[in-house]
Amino acid sequence: MKALGERGLVELIRRRAGSRQSGWRVAIGDDAAVMRAPQGQDLVYTSDTLVEGTHFRWSTTRPRALGRKTLAVNLSDLGAMGATPRGFLLNWTLPESSSASQIDGFLRGLLQLANRAKCPLVGGDTVAGPVWTMSVTAIGSVPMGKGLLRSTAKVGDRLMVTGTLGAASLGLYQLEAGRKQASIYQRRQLDPAPPYELGRRLLRSRGMGAALDLSDGLATDLERICLSSEVGAEVDLELIPVNRGFHRSCDKENLNPWELVLFGGEDYELLFTVRADASTASKLTRQLGHRVTEIGRIVRGRRPRFRMNGKSVSIPGRAFEHFKTR
Amino acid sequence: MKALGERGLVELIRRRAGSRQSGWRVAIGDDAAVMRAPQGQDLVYTSDTLVEGTHFRWSTTRPRALGRKTLAVNLSDLGAMGATPRGFLLNWTLPESSSASQIDGFLRGLLQLANRAKCPLVGGDTVAGPVWTMSVTAIGSVPMGKGLLRSTAKVGDRLMVTGTLGAASLGLYQLEAGRKQASIYQRRQLDPAPPYELGRRLLRSRGMGAALDLSDGLATDLERICLSSEVGAEVDLELIPVNRGFHRSCDKENLNPWELVLFGGEDYELLFTVRADASTASKLTRQLGHRVTEIGRIVRGRRPRFRMNGKSVSIPGRAFEHFKTR
Repeated sequence: MKALGERGLVELIRRRAGSRQSGWRVAIGDDAAVMRAPQGQDLVYTSDTLVEGTHFRWSTTRPRALGRKTLAVNLSDLGAMGATPRGFLLNWTLPESSSASQIDGFLRGLLQLANRAKCPLVGGDTVAGPVWTMSVTAIGSVPMGKGLLRSTAKVGDRLMVTGTLGAASLGLYQLEAGRKQASIYQRRQLDPAPPYELGRRLLRSRGMGAALDLSDGLATDLERICLSSEVGAEVDLELIPVNRGFHRSCDKENLNPWELVLFGGEDYELLFTVRADASTASKLTRQLGHRVTEIGRIVRGRRPRFRMNGKSVSIPGRAFEHFKTR
Repeated sequence: MKALGERGLVELIRRRAGSRQSGWRVAIGDDAAVMRAPQGQDLVYTSDTLVEGTHFRWSTTRPRALGRKTLAVNLSDLGAMGATPRGFLLNWTLPESSSASQIDGFLRGLLQLANRAKCPLVGGDTVAGPVWTMSVTAIGSVPMGKGLLRSTAKVGDRLMVTGTLGAASLGLYQLEAGRKQASIYQRRQLDPAPPYELGRRLLRSRGMGAALDLSDGLATDLERICLSSEVGAEVDLELIPVNRGFHRSCDKENLNPWELVLFGGEDYELLFTVRADASTASKLTRQLGHRVTEIGRIVRGRRPRFRMNGKSVSIPGRAFEHFKTR
């Protein structure tokens, strides 16, 4: 970093990212980025920050994966609104001691995903600070009034999730415990690949209800849908999709698999509801080419309730919070 | 911070900022903020980060002023594009040890300016980290194709600046040197009030050329206009507007006033060009109700040149960079 300086870093980013982007009148290189307002669309904005020491450690993180994750967690939020990515701004704080290979790897990973997602880097800021801190603001668009919200679940809706849950959380535990052998779980934690394109395909589905991306654990995030939509929910724990071998791996670590699934966080899968007569999980799985599982129903009430083998189980009312657990 | 937790902090922000904002379909409280795309407009995005230890120290900074400055530096960039502010996202990293009065004061200052500028807080993220780090992404709009760019200066244009230069930079020196007596210069550094509304009024002026906001010193920022517009510039140093008593205060600190003006940074005034036959500084001053000074001309060439009493002076080719000077 020291050799490069702030200006050199901006120049490197501009060269890598390119200064012309389709749909953008001005990208990197003026006081601000300028975009034509898309006709008949709503604009969607989301922001997420990753901080060294809070969200990752260099001892277990590779620069490229970190670059991808920095954008991926934001694409996940755009996807949960059903939005098409349009571009992003990066606010990048890094220490003077950062190595060229960290900087280079991070930029490669970031821009690789940006290319794949057609979500160009259009602006931002680079500054010096004590630890790596990356704030991305991602911009997307949805047809006017069509964005998938948290507040549109209705009593009777089927409750669905994509992919598998709990894996990233188990991976985090393994990393923090110093397990040397790389696992699929560690990979889910370090290099998540959210299915950010599913949301916008779901927009075309009949009978969509509410949606969000699972970032803080099923219990916490489902409660958000319940609060926003003023409904309750009933979930059958045994229906929640997990990786093959997940329970065995949890046993080995002496972890409660339900705790990881319900409160672990960083799944970056979609949690959504569909009207009961609209579609089934198997139809959606075929339609999306991605696993969708029905795990319960939206019911009257204000909170999620959980059942195991038909019997209600009580879940301690706690939420995963970075401030408390890391 | 500890007592509040991440969720408590988000709740506090949402309560203070409000969750309904005019022009916004969804503000704080979903995966993303949703805005109606304004018809016939371009959207303008800018981002700036302030880091504790790099850009400010708690020993000399009050929370309210810091809150205002966090948004102000971004409003300044929007203003330099001629944009009307629409809203902003805040990515806020803060240590667990942050006090309630720091958090409260910061939010008050931030939202006070947000209200005044009609630029509501619509989203963001709060996370734990070792030092205060605030990244704002501000969203604005300009009539389609009308944004003020750096690249549109033409040979013959008059070169203008608003307000006075060098003051914030002198203030920073006084703060770092431990001068106890609060000065107007320290205030310009700690609590800048960029004339962000001038840019959009200038849009209605005939014969506007290029524009940017002065954040890194006149020499550095003017060079940006020259590079983008492929022109040169001639500036008369004695025409550069400074505060009454500025030279005397610089003498007292044994500082070269020209160095502060040319390389000091954080002026947050507008630097812009107008076609020679379009308007004069005194007309613009009356029209804007804000001091505008003509300091030179756009000429053929590639770089800014500086004159004093009609004689060319050589300026060492160095730029103010956070990495090197703080």
